[in-house]
Amino acid sequence: MTSTDIDASRLWAVADRLADAARVETLRHFRSRGLAAESKRADFDPVTVADRSAEAAMRAILAEARPDDAVLGEEHGATAGTSGLTWVLDPIDGTRGYISGTPTWGVLVSVADADGPLLGLIDQPYIGERFRGGLGRASVEGPMGEARLGVRPTRTLAEATLFTTFPEVGSPEEGAAFRRVASEVRLTRYGCDCYAYALLAAGQIDLVIEAGLQPYDVQAPIAVIEAAGGIVTDWTGGRADGGGRILAAATPEIHAAAMERLAWV
Amino acid sequence: MTSTDIDASRLWAVADRLADAARVETLRHFRSRGLAAESKRADFDPVTVADRSAEAAMRAILAEARPDDAVLGEEHGATAGTSGLTWVLDPIDGTRGYISGTPTWGVLVSVADADGPLLGLIDQPYIGERFRGGLGRASVEGPMGEARLGVRPTRTLAEATLFTTFPEVGSPEEGAAFRRVASEVRLTRYGCDCYAYALLAAGQIDLVIEAGLQPYDVQAPIAVIEAAGGIVTDWTGGRADGGGRILAAATPEIHAAAMERLAWV
Repeated sequence: MTSTDIDASRLWAVADRLADAARVETLRHFRSRGLAAESKRADFDPVTVADRSAEAAMRAILAEARPDDAVLGEEHGATAGTSGLTWVLDPIDGTRGYISGTPTWGVLVSVADADGPLLGLIDQPYIGERFRGGLGRASVEGPMGEARLGVRPTRTLAEATLFTTFPEVGSPEEGAAFRRVASEVRLTRYGCDCYAYALLAAGQIDLVIEAGLQPYDVQAPIAVIEAAGGIVTDWTGGRADGGGRILAAATPEIHAAAMERLAWV
Repeated sequence: MTSTDIDASRLWAVADRLADAARVETLRHFRSRGLAAESKRADFDPVTVADRSAEAAMRAILAEARPDDAVLGEEHGATAGTSGLTWVLDPIDGTRGYISGTPTWGVLVSVADADGPLLGLIDQPYIGERFRGGLGRASVEGPMGEARLGVRPTRTLAEATLFTTFPEVGSPEEGAAFRRVASEVRLTRYGCDCYAYALLAAGQIDLVIEAGLQPYDVQAPIAVIEAAGGIVTDWTGGRADGGGRILAAATPEIHAAAMERLAWV
């Protein structure tokens, strides 16, 4: 499939419908008393009824509006397609933040072909804020209206603000690699899940470094950040859309500086 | 001064005026490109023009509406009064989060007498969300309307969600004490500044543990959490309104369990 075959406005319309549906389902349960969180794994990976119902609502729309496209979702797995396009869905990125009531979890929607994500959307339902990137768009719509996204021109680690979600980052070796970068930046902050990628695209921060991500965690952020002029790779500079160890940076200079310190892991 | 001398509705009306004024000033600069952050100290404590202008706007209202009350503010220091009441102001709690574009910094307003805070308000201007506690109020007003605040009945550390802002918490000894609690809870999250106290009052989390706080960082949270049925003390169970090492808990049981592990520092 070539990019000329893609009707950008139709894809964006469907992406927005998906995010609108997920907003309803996620806010229905957000901050409710007694929200049931069960664990998928021994080390507490909570899944809530909101995750499942939000993904189901998005898949119902895709089954009707885009029956030939494949779907990959966090909660309900992979559905094959014939078009060469795949919708990648994370109904709640940051479930731990969601069950704690924070406003920095998000709904992630993207569309990929064999070369990676074409468009991506990061939605924060409680704030009512949507970041869109790809196929001609790079914008945020929220409480202060609509604005263009664009990374900021930070050139050195000494000027940079770095985000990650968990202080341990990943394995002990991955944590040590992260701290080599963190020890040189101006400011390190924790706990934002997908919202950190949105802040990078909005020119507010300079680096996001994480490990252990899944494809559905990272494909929408890749599209949003690339549309804003930033760079997302794995820690060795390779493709990031498969997940794993992720390095997102505002500029080539800061990307290279961070990668040099991460590469020893 | 006895509580019968206090006109709660007048004090609340002024507190809301202060927070409204601070919303305008803080949002004027929020996410602007090139926001100047200067450091008050060598280890990067950023102060922005928004901090200063927001506190100046609040002080101008108090000078006109409450000329007999004392004022203590983060940026512009202490002004004496004669009424026995002190307005305690933190124009931007979480300046590091503010200059990074996150939605978890807040405006803190409280009124104290000699016995501690009488009322407190935690406002998140970007979300448009205001938590109020004290003198008969315990409520949050935000994107989903208005709701009562109330802590949740968590009884054991094993069920608890714990928040703090910085992973290092404070000194190495303070960090070690924190980790004794963190190692026993279900979930630990970082990075929320004052918003964590609001989440505790809203029944979303169970514990907040921090060190090195100032009076203006903690007085509004104390009023909001106590109005919601929670407990805020220092790490030894003493008064918290002077700042320092803070332990906020949803229930007496979880407060006692955390304090036992913090007390060895």
